[in-house]
Amino acid sequence: MSAPSPETPRADAGAPETSSRRGRPGRPREEGLDARLVEAALALIDSGEPVTAAKLVQLSGVSRAAVYRRWPSLTDLVATALDRGRDAHVIPIDGDLRAALHDAFLGGYEQRMAGYPEARMRRRLALGLADPVLQRAYWDAHVARRRVSTIAVLRAGVEQGLLRADTDLEACADLLSGVFYYQLVVRGVSLTDAEALARCRAAFEVIWRGMSAEAGE
Amino acid sequence: MSAPSPETPRADAGAPETSSRRGRPGRPREEGLDARLVEAALALIDSGEPVTAAKLVQLSGVSRAAVYRRWPSLTDLVATALDRGRDAHVIPIDGDLRAALHDAFLGGYEQRMAGYPEARMRRRLALGLADPVLQRAYWDAHVARRRVSTIAVLRAGVEQGLLRADTDLEACADLLSGVFYYQLVVRGVSLTDAEALARCRAAFEVIWRGMSAEAGE
Repeated sequence: MSAPSPETPRADAGAPETSSRRGRPGRPREEGLDARLVEAALALIDSGEPVTAAKLVQLSGVSRAAVYRRWPSLTDLVATALDRGRDAHVIPIDGDLRAALHDAFLGGYEQRMAGYPEARMRRRLALGLADPVLQRAYWDAHVARRRVSTIAVLRAGVEQGLLRADTDLEACADLLSGVFYYQLVVRGVSLTDAEALARCRAAFEVIWRGMSAEAGE
Repeated sequence: MSAPSPETPRADAGAPETSSRRGRPGRPREEGLDARLVEAALALIDSGEPVTAAKLVQLSGVSRAAVYRRWPSLTDLVATALDRGRDAHVIPIDGDLRAALHDAFLGGYEQRMAGYPEARMRRRLALGLADPVLQRAYWDAHVARRRVSTIAVLRAGVEQGLLRADTDLEACADLLSGVFYYQLVVRGVSLTDAEALARCRAAFEVIWRGMSAEAGE
């Protein structure tokens, strides 16, 4: 999963028209409309303005009818816009699992952040806190799918006997991500801050040791 | 530390008048002003309105001059208001450290949340994400002080040889809290949700095992 395709958000939001849209591949003009809508939504979000149909029509040139035909709700469009540029976290499970997981969470952090500015991340989280419906839509359509890769590497670790058999995969995925969010959401420090990254690195060691089969079994 | 006294926020924000105020104990009328200002700020926050001097004057009946005499900045007043009702997390270090830490993070969660509604927690985090100055003020005056107790119990664990000598106390405190914030900020589920609490409980076990001296040394 790289940048979200225009297809995926509707599929994940369970839009009834999904299958018919999937059956119409290669309609560049239609896909162009989605891209323009996502761009317009992102421009509004980044400028701190509420995303309304009127503003979207004005900025994108797409008709109001087309907006609602293409997106079951503006919430899904906003969620997709907020995901633009986020890293994919696809973790290989055919090699050193610990190194792969470490690299996924701690490798090349600066580069990764470059594609997804911190200001947008702050706005995404703030919008979600203010609007639980958007928060759940974003989780369902984007976060939950991205986590699949983290869960897969943890499961492989359990299957290989590297991690404890009783490892709670969901809880450990939350733990791995949670310490990063804590830096931005509670401490208010940038995720490129050297001390913040050092804490996240130390936390990773604690988590890995806590999950390891050698450690407690 | 229970509910923040009207004295503490100015002391923590480094207000120059702090020492003189501390030298004037028992001035109920003055303390009454602070309480009214915090109440007024909280009413504005809870209703989603911005906290302005004009609104504070209108709601509290305290004069504009008195507002600015008593609070170096409205940011500090907002931070104090946002902390109203938050649990103290004072953890005993003279008994079973693991049980004490577990109880501090996972015991009586429903009761604790009752004193600090989730809506206010969401608003506090959203306001902080939108305003890094407020976020830092809240961290410095409130979170950092509350964390002292968590850090103290971890340090006692290291000193007793229960936890690894190389335990990064700050990173582990972030880790312990981070998984709770993740539920609300990213998953968008309530901290009283049974599955969310089960994940936090499982995460606590992983963290404790990962810090334990027996586990890796």
